Amino acid sequence: MTKTIQETINSITPVNEVSRPQAQHAIDNKTKPVGSLGRLEDIAIKCATIQQTTQPILRNRTAIVFAADHGITTEGVSVYPAEVTPQMCINFLNGGAAINAICNSTGASFHLVNMGVNYDFSNEPQIINRVIRKGTSNFAVEPAMTEVEAQNAIDAGMSAMQEIYDKENPDIVAIGEMGIGNTSSATAITATICGMPVSEVTGRGTGVDDAGLLHKQKVIAKALKFHKPSATDPIDILAKVGGFEIAGMAGAMLKAASLGVIIVVDGFISTSAALIAQQLCPHITGYMIAGHKSVEKGQIAALKKLNLAPVLDLGMRLGEGTGATLTMNLAVTATDILRNMASFDEAGVSRE
Amino acid sequence: MTKTIQETINSITPVNEVSRPQAQHAIDNKTKPVGSLGRLEDIAIKCATIQQTTQPILRNRTAIVFAADHGITTEGVSVYPAEVTPQMCINFLNGGAAINAICNSTGASFHLVNMGVNYDFSNEPQIINRVIRKGTSNFAVEPAMTEVEAQNAIDAGMSAMQEIYDKENPDIVAIGEMGIGNTSSATAITATICGMPVSEVTGRGTGVDDAGLLHKQKVIAKALKFHKPSATDPIDILAKVGGFEIAGMAGAMLKAASLGVIIVVDGFISTSAALIAQQLCPHITGYMIAGHKSVEKGQIAALKKLNLAPVLDLGMRLGEGTGATLTMNLAVTATDILRNMASFDEAGVSRE
Repeated sequence: MTKTIQETINSITPVNEVSRPQAQHAIDNKTKPVGSLGRLEDIAIKCATIQQTTQPILRNRTAIVFAADHGITTEGVSVYPAEVTPQMCINFLNGGAAINAICNSTGASFHLVNMGVNYDFSNEPQIINRVIRKGTSNFAVEPAMTEVEAQNAIDAGMSAMQEIYDKENPDIVAIGEMGIGNTSSATAITATICGMPVSEVTGRGTGVDDAGLLHKQKVIAKALKFHKPSATDPIDILAKVGGFEIAGMAGAMLKAASLGVIIVVDGFISTSAALIAQQLCPHITGYMIAGHKSVEKGQIAALKKLNLAPVLDLGMRLGEGTGATLTMNLAVTATDILRNMASFDEAGVSRE
Repeated sequence: MTKTIQETINSITPVNEVSRPQAQHAIDNKTKPVGSLGRLEDIAIKCATIQQTTQPILRNRTAIVFAADHGITTEGVSVYPAEVTPQMCINFLNGGAAINAICNSTGASFHLVNMGVNYDFSNEPQIINRVIRKGTSNFAVEPAMTEVEAQNAIDAGMSAMQEIYDKENPDIVAIGEMGIGNTSSATAITATICGMPVSEVTGRGTGVDDAGLLHKQKVIAKALKFHKPSATDPIDILAKVGGFEIAGMAGAMLKAASLGVIIVVDGFISTSAALIAQQLCPHITGYMIAGHKSVEKGQIAALKKLNLAPVLDLGMRLGEGTGATLTMNLAVTATDILRNMASFDEAGVSRE
C-alpha cells in the first residue's frame, strides 16, 4: 500500500455518533407527526451526524465522473463499442449528457476525471487528468492492471478529490463514472467481495440481450476462476478484474471521508467502488448515502454488504452520477427541513 | 351541478396524445441507453404531452394547501386534537411547516386556501379565503355537508386555482391539504369509489395505534352503511362523508386541467380528491402525476383507480403537499433533461 493511501485511511475518523440523538430529537420536535417525512428524516439525520451539528447544511455540491476504458470490451460484453467512452467524455465536456443536464438543473458543479480513456483529449481545462494507462488489459486473459497501477489509480482518485475540494469546498459529492465495459468489472468485484455467484450479480449493463447476458456471465465467471482474487485484498481485486475509474472512485471516496465530505454513491459501478473503499477502511460507510436503486441486480448485494439502503427507486441504470446527483438535491431539501422547520414549541402547535 | 362546475368540466380537453410519440422519439435519441433514466423519462414525456411540445418547461411551480376542519374528529379518529388544524395554518403562514421548508428549498411558491378552518384568522393577505363553513358536521351521525355546500366548495377550489393562476401563471401545481380528521373522509371516499372494504383502505393517519385503527375503521364503516353514498355520484359522496378541503382540491384540479396546468397529486387525501375529480371528468387523469407513494394504504387502491403510478417512495405520510412538491422539483429536472441533453447525432456518439 502506498504511503498516501495508508495516511488517508488513517485520517478517516469513524463518524462521531454523538450528534445523531440530538438531530433525531430536533427532527422529532418539528411540527409534524414523528417519522412522517420518512427517508427525508434519515438523510437529514445522517448529514447532521457526519457534519456533527443539528443544523446541517449542503452549500456546495459536486458530481464527479471518473472515466476509463476497459480491455474486457474485446470479449463482446457490452452492446456499445468502446469508442463511446471518449465520445461520451467529449459530450460531458460540451455539456450534452444527462449528468450535465441534471447538474445544471439542480445547482451542482461537474467534474470529469480522466483515469485512462483511450483518446488524446486536447488540453481541455475542464478535464482533471489522472491517466494511469489508456484502458485496462483484458481481464479475461490477463490481470486488468498491475498492483502498482491499482494503487496509483487509488492515489490519483484521492488527489483529484483533493484538487476539487481545494477549489470548491464541497459539502457533498456524487461519485459517478463512464467506461464502456465497466459493469463487467463491477460484477467481478461484487461477486468476489460479497461471495456471490456471478449469475446472481450480473446485469444487462447498457442493454445486452439474454444471449449477451449469458455470455457476459461466462466471461466473468471464467476470469474469476482463472485469477482467484482474494475477497479481503482490494488491491488484488482491482489489479486482477478492476478498472482505473473504479480504483479512482474508491480513492476519491476515501479522500472525501477524510475531509468530512458526505459521499453519495451512484449506481452499480459506483457501489462496487464503495465496496473497495469499505475493504480498505470499514468505517467509511458512515460517510455514505446510497443514492438510488439501480436496475443492475448486483447492486443489491453490494448495498447489503455496505449496509446502506438506496434513497430513490426510479428504475435508473445510466451511471454518470445521475442518480446520486438527484439524491444530493433531495439531501439539500432534507437538511433545509431540519434547519428551517419550526418546533412544536416555537410554533405553538399542540402535540398528540 | 352548478353552471361553473359544468363549464369547467366541459372546457377540459382530453390531453392530445400527438406529442407523446414525438417526445418519446426525442428522449430515445438522447445520448444514453434507451430507457436508462427510468421514471424521469416517463415524467418528461407526460409533461411534454400535456404541454404539447417536445421541449416542455416548468418555469413557475406552486404548492397549494387546502385546509378545513372535520366534525368527525369528535369520534376520536385522530391522535391530534382538532385545534391543530388552525395552529398548523398559522405555522404555514409563519413559514415554519415542512411544506414551507420544501417550497423554499425547491423554488416553489406557497398558497394556503382556507376552505373552512374553525378559527378567525386576522386578515392575513397570504390566506386565500374560501370558507364554506367552519368545519364539516360529524359524518358519523349526519351528512358532512349539504349538496349545495359540496358544490360551492368545488366552485371555491376552482376560483382559488384561477386566482393563483392569474397571479403566477404556474406550469405545474402540487395539491396538498391540512385538516385533522381528514384521512377518515379520504378513507370513506376511497372505499366508496373504489368499491373496497373499509378495513382495506384505512390507515393510521397521523398515527393512531392498533386499537385506534380498529375504532377508526368501525366509525367509517358504520357511517358508510348509514349514508350509502353512490359510488358514481361525487357530489353525493362529498356531501355525505367528504371534507371542504377535499372538495376544494377536486375543484382546483379541475380548474388546473382546464388551464393546461400539470397537476401533482400528493398523499392519500389529495389522491381521494383526485378520485372525486376523476368521477366528475374521467379524462382529467391525463393531466395528473402521482407524486409519491404514501404510507397510508388506501392510497394504493385510489392510485390504481386513477391509473397512476407514484414517482417517489420515501415512506412519507405528512400531506401538506410535501411529497408532491418534491416530485414537482424532480419534474423540473426531468423536463430540463428532455430540453437540454444532446442527441446521438448532435454529440457524435456511436449507437449500439
